[in-house]
Amino acid sequence: MLQVKTPEEVFRLIEMEFQPLTKQAETVSLSEALGCVLAENIVAAEYVPGFNRSTVDGYAVRASDTFGCSDAIPAILPVAGEIKMGEEAAVPLPRGTCFYVPTGGAIPEGADCVVMIEYTEDYGDGTIGISKPGTPGMNLIFRGDDVFPGKPLLKAGHVLAPQDIGALAAIGKTEIPVQKRLRIGVISTGDELVPPDQQPAPGQIRDVNGPLLSAVLREFGAEPVNYGIVVDDEALLQKKTELAAKECDAVILSGGSSVGVKDAACRIIESMGKLLLHGIAVKPGKPTILGKAGNKPLVGLPGHPVAAFFVTKLFILPLLAQLSGRENTVFPVSAELAENIGANHGRAQINACHLERKGEKLLAFPIHSKSGLITQLSGADGYFIIDRDCEGLPKGASIRIYQ
Amino acid sequence: MLQVKTPEEVFRLIEMEFQPLTKQAETVSLSEALGCVLAENIVAAEYVPGFNRSTVDGYAVRASDTFGCSDAIPAILPVAGEIKMGEEAAVPLPRGTCFYVPTGGAIPEGADCVVMIEYTEDYGDGTIGISKPGTPGMNLIFRGDDVFPGKPLLKAGHVLAPQDIGALAAIGKTEIPVQKRLRIGVISTGDELVPPDQQPAPGQIRDVNGPLLSAVLREFGAEPVNYGIVVDDEALLQKKTELAAKECDAVILSGGSSVGVKDAACRIIESMGKLLLHGIAVKPGKPTILGKAGNKPLVGLPGHPVAAFFVTKLFILPLLAQLSGRENTVFPVSAELAENIGANHGRAQINACHLERKGEKLLAFPIHSKSGLITQLSGADGYFIIDRDCEGLPKGASIRIYQ
Repeated sequence: MLQVKTPEEVFRLIEMEFQPLTKQAETVSLSEALGCVLAENIVAAEYVPGFNRSTVDGYAVRASDTFGCSDAIPAILPVAGEIKMGEEAAVPLPRGTCFYVPTGGAIPEGADCVVMIEYTEDYGDGTIGISKPGTPGMNLIFRGDDVFPGKPLLKAGHVLAPQDIGALAAIGKTEIPVQKRLRIGVISTGDELVPPDQQPAPGQIRDVNGPLLSAVLREFGAEPVNYGIVVDDEALLQKKTELAAKECDAVILSGGSSVGVKDAACRIIESMGKLLLHGIAVKPGKPTILGKAGNKPLVGLPGHPVAAFFVTKLFILPLLAQLSGRENTVFPVSAELAENIGANHGRAQINACHLERKGEKLLAFPIHSKSGLITQLSGADGYFIIDRDCEGLPKGASIRIYQ
Repeated sequence: MLQVKTPEEVFRLIEMEFQPLTKQAETVSLSEALGCVLAENIVAAEYVPGFNRSTVDGYAVRASDTFGCSDAIPAILPVAGEIKMGEEAAVPLPRGTCFYVPTGGAIPEGADCVVMIEYTEDYGDGTIGISKPGTPGMNLIFRGDDVFPGKPLLKAGHVLAPQDIGALAAIGKTEIPVQKRLRIGVISTGDELVPPDQQPAPGQIRDVNGPLLSAVLREFGAEPVNYGIVVDDEALLQKKTELAAKECDAVILSGGSSVGVKDAACRIIESMGKLLLHGIAVKPGKPTILGKAGNKPLVGLPGHPVAAFFVTKLFILPLLAQLSGRENTVFPVSAELAENIGANHGRAQINACHLERKGEKLLAFPIHSKSGLITQLSGADGYFIIDRDCEGLPKGASIRIYQ
C-alpha cells in the first residue's frame, strides 16, 4: 500500500520518474510562434544592427574635430553630405567635415560620434557650427551592439513571449522550430455525470472537470483531447484509458469519488505500468493517484472540481513542463492576508482568494466556502498555500499568491 | 503645440476621450471561450447542485436518531436502502433508519446529515452501528449551495479564465456570449525597413515593431491586422492609415524616427480627426503621438522597439481595455532591487529586469543596455518604473514588477 506523500515528496517523485519526451519539433511562422516552446537554442548568425547607427538627429563627425569647441568658440565644419534613411554613405567622411544623419541612419565610415542637432548651427554657407564637443561612441549604436554572430539569444524550452518574437524578427528568424504541443487525454468518470449541455436528472450533475481541466491545459499550452464521460465500469474505463494513453502523451482521469472507482483506477494504472503515488497531503486534493505507462503519466484526480483544479495547477503542470523540457518559472505576487485564517489538518491547505489594492498594500481575502463548490474559484484572483505544519496565519501575514 | 504629458495625465486623457465600443457580441462554444471577454453578465438560472449531496462515503441519517451515541453505546439503525451515484432515493428515509450513500450521492428526503463510514460498523444483519452523533448539515452540500437561480456569476467585461469555464459548465452555459476581438491595424513606417524575412542592405534594418506589436496585441486578446511597411511618403501613409482606420477599431503606426515623418503622422491624425497628445514624459517612449478619428484611437509609436513595446504595454493596452469595456486588473510582483539604479531625466523611467529567487527574497536585476536594443527585452522577466521625480533607487528598494 502506498503512503500519502507530502508535496515536496511528490515533486521529487515526478523529477525522478519522468524523462523529457523526445518529441518531433515542427516549424511555425513568426506570427504563429507566440506562446510556443522553442525546440532548439537560437543563436544569432549576423550583426544587428548591420551598421553603425545614429540614435539621434544630428551631424556625424570625428570627435577629434570637435574637441575644445564651445558656445563661444564653435567648431566650424563643412557639410560633406547627408545620409538618407535606409542608405549608406557613398563615401567615407572626409577629415574635418561632417555628414547630416537622421535618427537610425547609417554613420559614414570615419565618423565616430554624432552631435545632436540641438548643439549645432547651420550657417547657411555649407558649414555647421558645433558648440559641444563629441566623444567617440557618443549617440551611436555600433554594428553588432544588439546581436553578433554566435550570440546565444534564446534557449530550447523557452516559452516565446512577445518580446522574443521581436528579437527573432530582428535577426531574420521567421521560421521558428517549436515543440509540438503535448496532447493530454482527459477522461471524466462517474455514473452521476452528464455533459454540460444536458439537463441533469435528480441525483445527476454536469461534468465540470472535463471543460475545466481542458481549459487549464489549453492555457498552459497543451492540447487537451476529450474522451468524454465514462460510467463506473472498470472494463470500459480500462479500454478508454488505454486508448487515450496510446493516442496522447499523458492521461488525466478525474472523478470516481466512490471507493470502487478509486480502486479501479489504481488497478488500471498498475495493469498499464506502475502506480507511483496514492494520496497527496494537501487539502483539497488528497485522493490523487499518479502512475505511468512507460514514460506517459497516468493521473487520477479527485472528482471535486476545486481539488482537481488545484492539483493540476500545483503538480500536473510542473510534471507536463518537465515532460516537454520547458521552463516553468512562476513569480508569485506578494500580498498581505486581510484576515486570520485557520488550518489544522496535517495537510498543506490551498485557499483561493480575492486581491484588492489598498494604497500601497495588496490585500488577500481568502474565499471561504464548503468543499467542492466550483463558484468559489470562479472570479478568484489567485490562491495561496498554508504549510502542513502551520496551524493558521494571522491577519497581516505576508503571503505568496499564485495565479 | 501640444505639451509633453505625464503618465497620469495620459491616463486621464484616455479616460476622458474614448468611450467603450458597442461591438457586436458573438457566441462561442465553451471550449473556445478561454481568454474571451464576456459580452453579458452571467446569472445562474438553476440550482447547483440540484439536490442535497453527500461529501463523504457513509450513512445518511436523521441527526436526531444518532444523538447521544458513542463508541460504547452506538446507535443501531436498520439499513433501509442504498443510494446509487446519479440516482435519487426511490423513497424518503423512514424514521429510525439509514441509507448508504457514496460521496457525491443524493441524500434521501428526510435525512439531514451523513455519518462517515469510518464511524459506523456493519453488523451484517441489516443494521449499522453508529458511534459518532451527527449534526444537521454535517457532510452535506445543500441544493443550491454553489449556485441558485438569480445568483450573479460573472460580469460583462470579465476575461474568462479556466476556473470560469468550469463554473459555466456547472450551470450548463455552453454557448457563451463574448465580445468580438478588437481589430487593430499595425503599420510600420520608415525607408530603412525591410520585412523580417529579407536580408537588409547596408543602412537597412528589419521591421521589428510589426511582429513585436502584433504579438503584444495577440497576447492581450486583440486581433492585429498587418498593413506592412510604408515608406516615408506622407500621401501613401495617409492612404494606408485611412484604410486601416476604416477596417479596424484602432490604428497603431510605429517608426518614423525622422522629424519629417513625425510631423507627417501628426498632420495625418489631425486631418482624420483630432490630435490629443504629442509626447509622454517617459523614458523610453517620449515621442509618442495619440489622436482619434471619431472614437477610433490613432497611435504613433516611437520607432525604437523597446520604446514601442513599453508604451504599448503601459498606455495602449489600457486604452484598448477601456475601448472594449473589459477589466484590466494587473497585480504586479513585489521584488527587491538587486543593485543601485540611477534616474535623472525629469521623465518616468521604465527598466526591463531579470528576476531571481534567493531564498525568501525575489531579486530584480535591471537590464542595462543602450537605447533601442531589442535583445535587452528578450528574455526579460518584467519591467519596473522609476517615478519622474525620483533620482534613482537604492539596492534593496522594494519595487513592483510588471509582466
